[in-house]
Amino acid sequence: MLEARLSQTLLLKKVVDALKEIIAQGTLDCSDNGLELQSMDNSHVSLVALSLASDCFEKFHCDRNVSLGLDLKSLGKVLKCANSDDAVTIKAVDRPEKITLSFESDGKERTADYELKLLNLDQDHMEIPKKDYTCYIQLPSSEFARICRDMSMFDESLTIACSSKGIRFSAKGDLGTANIQLNAGTAMDVSIEVQEPVTQSFAGRYLNTFTKATPLADRVKLYLSEERPLLVEYPIEDYGHIRYYLAPKVNEPDF
Amino acid sequence: MLEARLSQTLLLKKVVDALKEIIAQGTLDCSDNGLELQSMDNSHVSLVALSLASDCFEKFHCDRNVSLGLDLKSLGKVLKCANSDDAVTIKAVDRPEKITLSFESDGKERTADYELKLLNLDQDHMEIPKKDYTCYIQLPSSEFARICRDMSMFDESLTIACSSKGIRFSAKGDLGTANIQLNAGTAMDVSIEVQEPVTQSFAGRYLNTFTKATPLADRVKLYLSEERPLLVEYPIEDYGHIRYYLAPKVNEPDF
Amino acid sequence: MLEARLSQTLLLKKVVDALKEIIAQGTLDCSDNGLELQSMDNSHVSLVALSLASDCFEKFHCDRNVSLGLDLKSLGKVLKCANSDDAVTIKAVDRPEKITLSFESDGKERTADYELKLLNLDQDHMEIPKKDYTCYIQLPSSEFARICRDMSMFDESLTIACSSKGIRFSAKGDLGTANIQLNAGTAMDVSIEVQEPVTQSFAGRYLNTFTKATPLADRVKLYLSEERPLLVEYPIEDYGHIRYYLAPKVNEPDF
Repeated sequence: MLEARLSQTLLLKKVVDALKEIIAQGTLDCSDNGLELQSMDNSHVSLVALSLASDCFEKFHCDRNVSLGLDLKSLGKVLKCANSDDAVTIKAVDRPEKITLSFESDGKERTADYELKLLNLDQDHMEIPKKDYTCYIQLPSSEFARICRDMSMFDESLTIACSSKGIRFSAKGDLGTANIQLNAGTAMDVSIEVQEPVTQSFAGRYLNTFTKATPLADRVKLYLSEERPLLVEYPIEDYGHIRYYLAPKVNEPDF
Repeated sequence: MLEARLSQTLLLKKVVDALKEIIAQGTLDCSDNGLELQSMDNSHVSLVALSLASDCFEKFHCDRNVSLGLDLKSLGKVLKCANSDDAVTIKAVDRPEKITLSFESDGKERTADYELKLLNLDQDHMEIPKKDYTCYIQLPSSEFARICRDMSMFDESLTIACSSKGIRFSAKGDLGTANIQLNAGTAMDVSIEVQEPVTQSFAGRYLNTFTKATPLADRVKLYLSEERPLLVEYPIEDYGHIRYYLAPKVNEPDF
Repeated sequence: MLEARLSQTLLLKKVVDALKEIIAQGTLDCSDNGLELQSMDNSHVSLVALSLASDCFEKFHCDRNVSLGLDLKSLGKVLKCANSDDAVTIKAVDRPEKITLSFESDGKERTADYELKLLNLDQDHMEIPKKDYTCYIQLPSSEFARICRDMSMFDESLTIACSSKGIRFSAKGDLGTANIQLNAGTAMDVSIEVQEPVTQSFAGRYLNTFTKATPLADRVKLYLSEERPLLVEYPIEDYGHIRYYLAPKVNEPDF
């Protein structure tokens, strides 16, 4: 049985907004430690992983592990019905067929209960190796979102070049070329740690989808290494994170 | 002849916004007492009735009764051209073919006159019996609008259950079920008077259309009785009201 | 070679927004004096002329005249990628095939470079005679924009009647008629100079397009004379202007 209570619905809204654009459905694995969700995106190119520790919740009780097959668009609709500052309680029995979300306004004058049907989803949980990366960048999440949006006007492909001097985003298309250079420094607080420079290209539309998580965190972390997927991590305060993984494009020679 | 002047166009904007979604055309009956309009909605399911007393106006002169067949979408377009704080004067001659709306900005530096052609509409004025209702609820109009909107995501039908304990709105559809409970109390100022509990279902899309009147009044009044149409009333200060009537759905047994 | 630097991108954004709706492509003529662009609109009915003096720029260097064939939609996209308070430097070599726009944030932590391909456009530079006009009106640009928008709901044609008493805008269509009268005065600061009264009709959709320049100037200047095109001028501080010219409609007799 699961019973988890958040004092504010806002966090749950942000988490579901960050997930629902990239995956239509996903299985939330609930255990004594908290909540986990891992899934390939709808087109099986990128991977998203959510982790939320039990101490993120005002109250958390999960005596047996429960897996909840969620339709994230439906969950998003239910969350739209709640005020951001409502308290929310998530409940599910063992081997559940539905999940209950209960919202309470301050003073309890208004209570709203929603029951959502659960789905039977195939699970393909992958073990993601925790290797080291050769480049580690931290930058404001809103700046990263803006760069991904701007670059995607030029080309479907975005190149990230990371060196100790800074990080350069570039795109080249019919319109022309675009280059944005961020230097490590104080005003915008960009931090860059580079053991070995990396230059990789990615499909911009996946990066754009990842940036739906922007409201979750002021700063986003990028991890890059040669021939490894990019890791884009949005920390959720001290309680967990949403991580997105995206393999680089294989560069084809220009003829 | 009719000549009616409001010191602020805002009220007229709100009234027309509340009407134009539910009825395309309507006949405004003008008499010495003020203005009245009554009409079935476009699909002849619900009824809307406007009443605006002459003392709502800064100046009101109507020596003979005049009926004005209005196209409300056109009237809405004209009102969009006016500032909310413009003064507006409505004029029509006896047996009119057109109506004139004159807007004056403060200081009269800007004046705008619009003439709208009138329509010949069949009138089907109904006498609405003023029976007592067994449930009377007052709640914030924005809260009622939100509930109608939220419920309509779940099902086209919305059930209202009213008892001395409170009022419960519920909907059940493919997505799941939704229940919102409002308890009489102070924070949101919900007041409930119940002689006999009532549970009725209504077509949500009509309720949603009624809530276009939300800007007219901070609080909305709901009146329910078994086997009688729901009355949703938005008071217009002390000068009148817009009332919407909607028959409950006949409950079919679930097989 | 051209090198021109503005301390704020905002001005360039406003200029391109004012042009890109009315002309898809245009040739920017750069000389030691500054920048000029002149073009018929996409449907060859109205004429637009931009003039921006070199002292508008923080730094301006143009040793040989350069003509830049610009796709204004593309330029608008690039400018959307810049912050309004970024500094921008425009560069082009002699006989250029591309133009470079470089944006720098305050503190230079972020730099962005965009290269746009140039177009080979036929040039049809017209000499516009600087005759005197018999009516000269100044009014708030936002008021002019609003009048053009409101009138276009009534008819595709808008009539401007200018006399020493004031200026009257009118339209007549299926919906009814609309008249807006502005009197010279202080509250809105409308100034009118009339040697000879003029009444002319214009295609409202061109006037609406001209008002895309509204953010450039608080006040717009209208110049009218019998049998001459209307001139709508938006000054760009003390550095230049955007001028739009539109021929009046030939009045056909009503049968």
